Amino acid sequence: MELTRLSLNSASVPTATLPDLVRLAEANSLHWVAPWRDIVQAFGIGASARLLRSSGLQISGLCRGGMFTSESGVVRESAIADNLRAIDEAQELGTELLAIVCGPVVGKDVLGSLSMVRDGLERIIDHADSAGVRLGIEPLHPMLAADRSVVTSLAAANALRLAIDHPAIGIIVDTYNVWFDAQFEQEVATIGDGLVGFQLADWVLPLGDPTKSRGMLGDGHIDLGGMVRTMDAAHYTGPIEVEILSAYWAAQPVELVANTIVTRFSSLDI
Amino acid sequence: MELTRLSLNSASVPTATLPDLVRLAEANSLHWVAPWRDIVQAFGIGASARLLRSSGLQISGLCRGGMFTSESGVVRESAIADNLRAIDEAQELGTELLAIVCGPVVGKDVLGSLSMVRDGLERIIDHADSAGVRLGIEPLHPMLAADRSVVTSLAAANALRLAIDHPAIGIIVDTYNVWFDAQFEQEVATIGDGLVGFQLADWVLPLGDPTKSRGMLGDGHIDLGGMVRTMDAAHYTGPIEVEILSAYWAAQPVELVANTIVTRFSSLDI
Repeated sequence: MELTRLSLNSASVPTATLPDLVRLAEANSLHWVAPWRDIVQAFGIGASARLLRSSGLQISGLCRGGMFTSESGVVRESAIADNLRAIDEAQELGTELLAIVCGPVVGKDVLGSLSMVRDGLERIIDHADSAGVRLGIEPLHPMLAADRSVVTSLAAANALRLAIDHPAIGIIVDTYNVWFDAQFEQEVATIGDGLVGFQLADWVLPLGDPTKSRGMLGDGHIDLGGMVRTMDAAHYTGPIEVEILSAYWAAQPVELVANTIVTRFSSLDI
Repeated sequence: MELTRLSLNSASVPTATLPDLVRLAEANSLHWVAPWRDIVQAFGIGASARLLRSSGLQISGLCRGGMFTSESGVVRESAIADNLRAIDEAQELGTELLAIVCGPVVGKDVLGSLSMVRDGLERIIDHADSAGVRLGIEPLHPMLAADRSVVTSLAAANALRLAIDHPAIGIIVDTYNVWFDAQFEQEVATIGDGLVGFQLADWVLPLGDPTKSRGMLGDGHIDLGGMVRTMDAAHYTGPIEVEILSAYWAAQPVELVANTIVTRFSSLDI
């Protein structure tokens, strides 16, 4: 697998600052990085934008906006305001993609929560479009439905995309979240040019904290090579982020994590 | 909710023996129980059958058969033999339903593993039919794809059912496994008279061991009443098992667990 497509997501090295992330990418001859907002805000938006521009690195996406669901209208409005800021940050950083984690099921109401997500996206889509930023809906694993995202499948994400029907909205595929889907090939083919992002992580056992249990590429049960081939067949040619949210890897030296990601990515069977 | 439909699944009271399960059901004026094979085998099949028959309790189902997937042909054959025994046990106990947990994704191959499940079911379906036992495919939560079941959605379970196309095969709906599915109503309506079993448990946070993290009815995020209404609308009129695999509830006195289940079931909003 060509390293030119690999993007280092900062969640894989959560102790790294933004300058650390840039240094790790440069040390490994990467072309892309994907920062989360926390490290961008900690270093300062303006300073982050300047550092990234001077580095020559491209930014595959900013993580993350969303969290549109709440039983409180005040909280929902606050989420809209935060998403508008996230779009501004993405524009200032010079990335065309804001990853969207939609927000959990609230009020025991799956369909009602989906409506809140649609409303939220429709409130921010024109601002995103003006900023040259696409909103990438990332379906999360269903085990996170009650605390992170009511959108738990590629089919549901695409239904949302089609309902909103705006060119500034797309879908991010994360292998960890959808690997078990027997309809994966068909869903990806159906989404087609609506695919705006692609992330890799492996599934390892035993499962611990569901937000910190991801495995290094090749250590688990996912046919990562096959999923890359499926994305290729759907003409997704963009960067491929490696986003390993893992308590184990978070405790390792960031250089080791980055080196391991590069080695494993290079040897993916595709 | 009428208590006449409630079935006490032995996994809710894992320290109970088969006589304990019968006593708990009788003490709470229940009409149904659902034993797992472990307690039946520990008490003896013949003795269990006699005790259940003399109690007058009905048996909503026997848990469980399945586990058809393996990269080893020898292991797959061994699973077939075990499923044939499970069918015999179900017949001897006098239940019309054997719950099927299909087996995990093996060899990083979702579609190949699904084929193994289909092959396994086709190998045992005639024996089940002769015994008057239906095989209930239970899609599990996708977080169990790597260790329990490659069948992780009602849609996938129903595709398998339709492919096998035999009246002795049906689908078991467990709220814990499918509650997040935005297509739940449509899927249940589509399956229709293929619905052969129904189980309740709630989803509580934080998630611990995914096989021991279920919540008591009403303690979590699932609209259990709504899901019961959806099953009613699809003309499922059979027993409703309460199956709360939970480290917390396993450590409580079985009388308390049974009483709590009865109270919560009675007050479900339907």
